[in-house]
Amino acid sequence: MKPHVIIIGGGFGGLKAAKLLGKSGRVKVTVLDRKNHHLFQPLLYQVATASLNPSDIAMPIRQILGAQTDTNVLMENVLSVDLAGKTVITESDRHPYDYLVMACGSSHSYFGHTDWEPLAPGLKTIEQALEIRRRVLTALELSEKEKDPKVQTRLLTFIVIGGGPTGVELAGALAELAHSIVSTEFDNIESARIRVVLVQGDARLLLAFSPALSEKAKLALEKKGVEVLMGRHATEITALGVRLGDEFIESATVLWAAGVKPSPLNGMLGVPLDRQGRVLVAEDLSVPGHPEAFVIGDQAHFETPKGPLPGLAPVAMQQGLAVGTNILRDLDKKSRKPFRYLDKGIMAVIGRSFAVTEFHGLELSGFPAWAMWLFVHIMYLVGHRNRIIVLINWAWSYLTFQRGARLITLASWRDADLGQAGRVTVAAATPAEVSAVLPGAAVPAAGKVPG
Amino acid sequence: MKPHVIIIGGGFGGLKAAKLLGKSGRVKVTVLDRKNHHLFQPLLYQVATASLNPSDIAMPIRQILGAQTDTNVLMENVLSVDLAGKTVITESDRHPYDYLVMACGSSHSYFGHTDWEPLAPGLKTIEQALEIRRRVLTALELSEKEKDPKVQTRLLTFIVIGGGPTGVELAGALAELAHSIVSTEFDNIESARIRVVLVQGDARLLLAFSPALSEKAKLALEKKGVEVLMGRHATEITALGVRLGDEFIESATVLWAAGVKPSPLNGMLGVPLDRQGRVLVAEDLSVPGHPEAFVIGDQAHFETPKGPLPGLAPVAMQQGLAVGTNILRDLDKKSRKPFRYLDKGIMAVIGRSFAVTEFHGLELSGFPAWAMWLFVHIMYLVGHRNRIIVLINWAWSYLTFQRGARLITLASWRDADLGQAGRVTVAAATPAEVSAVLPGAAVPAAGKVPG
Repeated sequence: MKPHVIIIGGGFGGLKAAKLLGKSGRVKVTVLDRKNHHLFQPLLYQVATASLNPSDIAMPIRQILGAQTDTNVLMENVLSVDLAGKTVITESDRHPYDYLVMACGSSHSYFGHTDWEPLAPGLKTIEQALEIRRRVLTALELSEKEKDPKVQTRLLTFIVIGGGPTGVELAGALAELAHSIVSTEFDNIESARIRVVLVQGDARLLLAFSPALSEKAKLALEKKGVEVLMGRHATEITALGVRLGDEFIESATVLWAAGVKPSPLNGMLGVPLDRQGRVLVAEDLSVPGHPEAFVIGDQAHFETPKGPLPGLAPVAMQQGLAVGTNILRDLDKKSRKPFRYLDKGIMAVIGRSFAVTEFHGLELSGFPAWAMWLFVHIMYLVGHRNRIIVLINWAWSYLTFQRGARLITLASWRDADLGQAGRVTVAAATPAEVSAVLPGAAVPAAGKVPG
Repeated sequence: MKPHVIIIGGGFGGLKAAKLLGKSGRVKVTVLDRKNHHLFQPLLYQVATASLNPSDIAMPIRQILGAQTDTNVLMENVLSVDLAGKTVITESDRHPYDYLVMACGSSHSYFGHTDWEPLAPGLKTIEQALEIRRRVLTALELSEKEKDPKVQTRLLTFIVIGGGPTGVELAGALAELAHSIVSTEFDNIESARIRVVLVQGDARLLLAFSPALSEKAKLALEKKGVEVLMGRHATEITALGVRLGDEFIESATVLWAAGVKPSPLNGMLGVPLDRQGRVLVAEDLSVPGHPEAFVIGDQAHFETPKGPLPGLAPVAMQQGLAVGTNILRDLDKKSRKPFRYLDKGIMAVIGRSFAVTEFHGLELSGFPAWAMWLFVHIMYLVGHRNRIIVLINWAWSYLTFQRGARLITLASWRDADLGQAGRVTVAAATPAEVSAVLPGAAVPAAGKVPG
């Protein structure tokens, strides 16, 4: 009877482990994920800004692994893990394992301000990307028919909180999207009135990069019309905008790219965590005291001389392979290899044709960096069809300046609710949420509440 | 000052009128739509069955008409029309007009059983297509991990109610989707256990076609594994299934393709309607007594020697052009031309490589009909990019038998709610709705309620 390996999470790390172990034919693999799809998160900001379709960057885990023998994929919501009893408890079953790989990734952290989530969606899932797309496009549609210039200004102001790669990429693409479609397709609003504000708490953007590249990224963003506010923190977020200390910037569309926190599963394991809640793993990525249980990717804190490894796709992928390899070495009665991260460099892209990359001290920026970014991202995208479709979409957008996926779709599918499309609120997921923030606010709240 | 033409609805008919009038440069055009996009409904069933992405068959109305001078596009929810005062009342404004073109299309009719809507979504909007996709794919995921064979059978039973083109196309594509992915990617369920049931109230399918073609369509469906039940009516729909007279078929996924009703706007006009609620229009498509107001497409009842014209895209398109032409003739002080429909024939497609078409008595079926269907649909699709992408998607699916858009996405985007993915209910939009139907039903209701 083959040993049973359970992998929680079909992200970059989980998939690598599942493929390697599945191909070996020496273990039974079960992949548990609450989603049915693997998501290529590095391109998620392009779904949020209407350049790509969800399925261009996501693929069913079942479709990726389905052909593998002895590999079982279940769409399951994991409730807890019993490390002592070597069992994963999900909502529909208990799953005993011989080996466990936890690769659950991370979600957004609002630093205790959980009430900010409905007002400022983050960008971790397809659902969130579509919500951001809906809010951005709806704000423009509402501003086109708005009579009150003050409200119009609020609708035309977009605030992105957080100056890391996600915030930088989102702000750059957002500025391009808004300016291009407003200047060509809107009659009642001037593209010059659009404000895209990027709020960064630290003294510079992209802390992971060199100060020189941070500065280049800042200039590239400003060239695209993004206002970069450095050293500022959001102290209040409402349906009407964001307070930065003593300044309140009115905005109907606030997006969150500031903080992430690892899977809540970590809290249930009863093992030592770092301050951010990541599991402090051993050098073979196992949980101290539980050699058969591994934690990888954003969920793990792997210490190196330069500090803990960052939450990057290459880190998760290499860790997935390392864990799979060590499980097979166990079966061969060989000693495990400690994990070593092979630095693949870092990249951030700012709209069309500009990026910054850093690779072992070698710094690149501008078009060459962008070309490299494009090549790498197409290469790592899962599925040939997706590569073809994404390339065509990019070529089309590059040549025509058009976005392929500028649809406003609603959460509700009921005919009765579809009237909402005309009065859909921007700054909150539902009118109810607006009224919650602003007692007595009439629908369409975000558009109509007197400033 | 140019006369002001308001067009309500950016569907097939409204767009044709807007383009013709906008290009003429002789009138000011305002297009009002509660959605921001034009939708190519004939291919919507392919979004519901995971072959195409929403934006492959939908395009922002603003993007289609934005370049036109004197054409204004507003995403507006129309509340009512004051025919006497020549004013359209929307949620955010009052819009006076010189000419009005109403092209609001139709929505689903549950024949008074409004409580059936949450249990059996129809297929008229992108939101509904995505909801159908979510339910179908979720039912398969739940059945893969279900232990109770009785519940598994319910999860593997799909019922489509209505044997018109929509029901036939949906059932055919659904059977192909379910059988192909279950046979290749699922470990715990047999594709032989999948039941796709098409329920038709009349004595034959596709009443608009000849009896011979109806029979061919029936055989083609049965070849794909669809059970066709003729002369049966749904008398009850619950989260557990459908009652057809004295038989109750357990099913977690019930889809509605039975009836349509015109826009509720018709009821507010205070003009004569037919039994289905369509406006009885004059031979120039104007509202009797209001020569400056026109009604076209599904919303209108245009009488011909063969009875009223059906709700087809070609009818709406030709009527849009006819109305635009007559408005321009008014400006030239020329007499209006009565509308004449040029029959473009009818088509229905059943999965890959089979279709039936009828054109002026000429009947075609099988592959040639399918090739014609494919050509016509690519040709009428709006946007070059969409044509390219759809062709690639089709070619890819045809060669690989894979679907490009098999994503389960949820209505909610909040991290807190995403756990739902693992327990998302199939037969109802929300667990609450299941409990409403089945008091005391535990979540995951559709999957777990004892039969």
